[in-house]
Amino acid sequence: MASTNVNEDLRNERTKCNFNVEELTNLLDDGKINTKRRRDLEEKVLNVKGIRDEIPEDYLSHKEKYENAVRKSVLLYKALREYTDTSIPFDQKIRANLRNSIPAAIVKDNSPFMLHSEMFIIAIMGQGTDEQKEYWLKRANNLEIIGTYAQTELGHGTFLRGLETTATYDANTEEFILNSPTLTAYKWWPGGLAHTANYCVVMAQLLIKDKSYGIQPFMVQIRDEETHMPLPGIKVGEIGPKLGFNTVNNGFLGFDHLRIPRERMLMKNAQVLKDGTFKASPNSKLAYGTMVYVRVMIVNTVSKYLARAVTIAIRYSAIRRQSQPKPGEPEPQILDYVTQQHKLLIALATTHAYHFTVRWLWDLYSNVNKDLSRGQLDNLPELHALACSLKVVSSADCTALIEKCRMACGGHGYMLSSCLPLLYGVSTATCTYEGENTVLLLQAARSLVKAWHQALKGQPLSPSMSYLEDKSPPTSWNSSLDGIISSFQRVARGKLSASVSALEQYMASGLSPEDAWNKASIQLTAAAEAHARVIVLTVYKAEVEKRAASLSPPLRAVLYQLLELYFIFWTLEKMGDLLLYTKLSEIDIRGLQKKYEDLLEKIRPNAVGLVDSFDFRDEILNSTLGAYDGRAYERLMEEALKSPLNSEPVNQSFHKYLKPFLRGKL
Amino acid sequence: MASTNVNEDLRNERTKCNFNVEELTNLLDDGKINTKRRRDLEEKVLNVKGIRDEIPEDYLSHKEKYENAVRKSVLLYKALREYTDTSIPFDQKIRANLRNSIPAAIVKDNSPFMLHSEMFIIAIMGQGTDEQKEYWLKRANNLEIIGTYAQTELGHGTFLRGLETTATYDANTEEFILNSPTLTAYKWWPGGLAHTANYCVVMAQLLIKDKSYGIQPFMVQIRDEETHMPLPGIKVGEIGPKLGFNTVNNGFLGFDHLRIPRERMLMKNAQVLKDGTFKASPNSKLAYGTMVYVRVMIVNTVSKYLARAVTIAIRYSAIRRQSQPKPGEPEPQILDYVTQQHKLLIALATTHAYHFTVRWLWDLYSNVNKDLSRGQLDNLPELHALACSLKVVSSADCTALIEKCRMACGGHGYMLSSCLPLLYGVSTATCTYEGENTVLLLQAARSLVKAWHQALKGQPLSPSMSYLEDKSPPTSWNSSLDGIISSFQRVARGKLSASVSALEQYMASGLSPEDAWNKASIQLTAAAEAHARVIVLTVYKAEVEKRAASLSPPLRAVLYQLLELYFIFWTLEKMGDLLLYTKLSEIDIRGLQKKYEDLLEKIRPNAVGLVDSFDFRDEILNSTLGAYDGRAYERLMEEALKSPLNSEPVNQSFHKYLKPFLRGKL
Repeated sequence: MASTNVNEDLRNERTKCNFNVEELTNLLDDGKINTKRRRDLEEKVLNVKGIRDEIPEDYLSHKEKYENAVRKSVLLYKALREYTDTSIPFDQKIRANLRNSIPAAIVKDNSPFMLHSEMFIIAIMGQGTDEQKEYWLKRANNLEIIGTYAQTELGHGTFLRGLETTATYDANTEEFILNSPTLTAYKWWPGGLAHTANYCVVMAQLLIKDKSYGIQPFMVQIRDEETHMPLPGIKVGEIGPKLGFNTVNNGFLGFDHLRIPRERMLMKNAQVLKDGTFKASPNSKLAYGTMVYVRVMIVNTVSKYLARAVTIAIRYSAIRRQSQPKPGEPEPQILDYVTQQHKLLIALATTHAYHFTVRWLWDLYSNVNKDLSRGQLDNLPELHALACSLKVVSSADCTALIEKCRMACGGHGYMLSSCLPLLYGVSTATCTYEGENTVLLLQAARSLVKAWHQALKGQPLSPSMSYLEDKSPPTSWNSSLDGIISSFQRVARGKLSASVSALEQYMASGLSPEDAWNKASIQLTAAAEAHARVIVLTVYKAEVEKRAASLSPPLRAVLYQLLELYFIFWTLEKMGDLLLYTKLSEIDIRGLQKKYEDLLEKIRPNAVGLVDSFDFRDEILNSTLGAYDGRAYERLMEEALKSPLNSEPVNQSFHKYLKPFLRGKL
Repeated sequence: MASTNVNEDLRNERTKCNFNVEELTNLLDDGKINTKRRRDLEEKVLNVKGIRDEIPEDYLSHKEKYENAVRKSVLLYKALREYTDTSIPFDQKIRANLRNSIPAAIVKDNSPFMLHSEMFIIAIMGQGTDEQKEYWLKRANNLEIIGTYAQTELGHGTFLRGLETTATYDANTEEFILNSPTLTAYKWWPGGLAHTANYCVVMAQLLIKDKSYGIQPFMVQIRDEETHMPLPGIKVGEIGPKLGFNTVNNGFLGFDHLRIPRERMLMKNAQVLKDGTFKASPNSKLAYGTMVYVRVMIVNTVSKYLARAVTIAIRYSAIRRQSQPKPGEPEPQILDYVTQQHKLLIALATTHAYHFTVRWLWDLYSNVNKDLSRGQLDNLPELHALACSLKVVSSADCTALIEKCRMACGGHGYMLSSCLPLLYGVSTATCTYEGENTVLLLQAARSLVKAWHQALKGQPLSPSMSYLEDKSPPTSWNSSLDGIISSFQRVARGKLSASVSALEQYMASGLSPEDAWNKASIQLTAAAEAHARVIVLTVYKAEVEKRAASLSPPLRAVLYQLLELYFIFWTLEKMGDLLLYTKLSEIDIRGLQKKYEDLLEKIRPNAVGLVDSFDFRDEILNSTLGAYDGRAYERLMEEALKSPLNSEPVNQSFHKYLKPFLRGKL
């Protein structure tokens, strides 16, 4: 990454850094070998001829953006297939691949092929019989066909049972008839569905002899493999521009009594026999598997988005100089303002928190998956609850902090060329898709309330909830990391207890259980969030501790500073709850505030080193403000000059509209 | 607004509404006559031929968006000039015009002419001599020329003294030489600067005989009036795409020793005589006037953005049905979920809070302006501090709540056709422009710390800060509106006192005053925010009370419910501070939480009526989700079908890239 022309302030920052950046990169990659593999792959793929844009995508029309994305996606997927090391087994591959951000360098607002690998193939793997997998996975993995996954409809998202698309079995012809009975039954959102995919896994209400058998998956061909024309009975198109994912080609899909063979239902779980006999899934919990996988991936995705945003914001804050607090002295780097550190260093600590959390969660997922394949389902509900809670807080926190990073860059953060608006746009979507955050919090609250009642009955709780059993009175405040975790447990217990009381009081006042639940739902979501905070604090600390012994002392010190910053930040943030449920006092708060301000000062000199360690190549950052060399102003101007509007001194609209107007001739 | 084809749920909501919607509209407009005037103007302007888009702007390229915006702006400004009632005096006109949102209906992402009226003309009025005003205002108001205002540079924004553009006086030729000595000296951001404006008020460092005389305003011609070509010595162009304001034509501007006549300096305040003698402004505070005006306008702008967002979100929440908490019953409207009410009803109350606050602030501004014209400057610093604080909290609150509204609409809120992403994009910018929010909070903190020391010395404080003098010990908690205001005053005092202590301790530990200020700045910004909360609560309550007597009882009841909701929301939000600084107890909190949940239930039936009363025409809302008739799904599909990508069943990229790829031929 050496450059002869690096901004002087950034050069000084790198000299000041007191730990080994490469050591941290290796730690984040889970080993030197992974760092090398990742870099090799980046080097190869990013240098494929024609894979980079000539003019910035943001100048193109919506249609041109799509066409350009297809052009690049083809090159990207080809290169990834060619250069990815296939010797690593599938589950290890995903684990090792968690830090791969190459697609962002090529199709930065995501690829129209994205759902092919991330949902279509996953759905076949999770829902297909061995025979179906054999056939479809081969075609899909070889990219003979390109697929997507259609679940959400215009009228229904998170509430699956409400989906209106029907698949009616006709035993005479041994076919399913797919139909969209209403406008709101149209599938809406699937990436690549509009003009890219020719196959699609469709979730539909299975009907056999007028009886409903729930939502089931069907493999549906939507376009001719030769001509790409939509097949008869299919209405398909794109849904229009969005806050993000504009190159993803999100589509709508309606069926007009489309007939597909019986074998096109994915029958690993439930089955429909030739004669129309329905055989239910042996265990309905099996369907959780894919959902959990996708949510684990979201925790990873958003923490990487945040890592990119904070890299951009910290490097820019190191080269931006503004104001003059001390007369006669040079303008300070804005990173020296404590209010700026307050915005950015917690973002840095949060990337670490979720970076380590996702690795812990992945390992848990892998283990539960192994259990599943042995028919052991006991740990699935806990994993499901954890993935659910962690998806919520990671998406919400990372999105909020990306926006904080953007705003910390002032006006220049508002430029698309900074890449910060795009990171916000794609990140905020994770709060909505794969389970809207409020809905998921209420689901998590349901498990918590259940656990609460189990605890009252003296029944044992799952490991991540066992702290709810503790009924000891609060002891004096303890600012150690363990002390803070125990205080947050007390808050979660207190909030859960208060929600349960509210629930009971609302029922006692005559409300039905459902109405009481609704009326107490603000408190219930707050209790669920409090529980999620306990998990993140606990896991972040445990994962850093696990690695600490093998680290050099300077790096260990820095990781603990970030950990402590994170703990104190959240203590101050949740001061009200802690005042209510623990013995935290005003004097403790003063002390913590001072400690927080001192920690910012300690971490400040390593801020640039810490973001350098994320090791994002400039092509991945895609940012005028965040490049390694810090030439932000030059890049802002260079990008602006690429605007097609700047290719002519006078725009045609002057002659057509403006001049007649100014002459009063219009 | 009657429509034969209104969604049934919305029709029911309107039947349920228990107050007179038109009465509230008239109240918001400050009188029936203003409602009529506003509607007449809307009716005329919105029906001008050719003024509405045929295909949605979001499908166009960046360049096409600009060209289309010029086309429409010309029609818009012509119509506004033709139809606006000119019989109303200037200051009353602005007051009466606060609810005008017509431009949003025409150039929804703002016009390239926007800075002509909002900054160029305001700058001439505030900074020009009578003679200069006579000449330039006439040309500007007649739209013979089109101007903008250039202050911010690539390297400097909020810190004015850091601006690098120089204006060096040459007494020999009686000219100023404008120059951009560095890349960072380039002007960057002014709306309309890129390809639209031919004149510009430029802020530059005045140099006379190597001595600097601070930042002064200069009237600079940048393009030829006939050909529109940039004049020699001018480098001008556009800065590229942004999160919002993409039709505003933000530009950059550099000078290469451009000479302009001495008379082109705007000399109402400071002057340069022919021989190069500098005459300072009689009072440096006079320059505050324009700044204050712009900040008052921002409070108004963001509260209208929020009103639009909440209209969209509440109407959509009334027609969207989801989930099935009670088996066998229909899916509820999502507006019936208490978590949804928790998101949206505070947004509604907040539009009221800032709606009334901005009217109070405008009247204060008008009065201070009258004082100014009589040479009376005493109240200017207080007005400046108030505008500063209110700009910060209104922009931050409204932006956050717009985003909450967007996310409360789930996936569909992510569609640009909902208009919610655009509202977020333009609203979030107000947190940065005209004084970045953190910087402004620190300015406000400086006045507060000054006031604190004055109070210690027994000196009287300005009215809005006089509560800081109170030193009485906290009394028992009081949940009345006045009780809550007094508790928030106690919090503001407590936080200010803690910041001053921290400041003193840091100085005692050896830090310079500047470094101590920096180190305590997180606490100082929090204290400034707490003060701003006191102002908003106080003003909102006073303004509702002032109007209450003249209202019908049902409307009065609804306005008080929103007021109370707002007060309790903020009490729960700032629970931690209140626990620290007042006698608020856990039991009080339970009671307030219950009261909050009950208030949501009371306001719920009037939610649609309350947003209907904002009286936004569909053309102004510009939203598939928020139209008066509630046909959200139909509109989503209609908008999608306008996509140029949907005009062909197979996109050319299939033949060019996708097919060869799927055939393995690439």
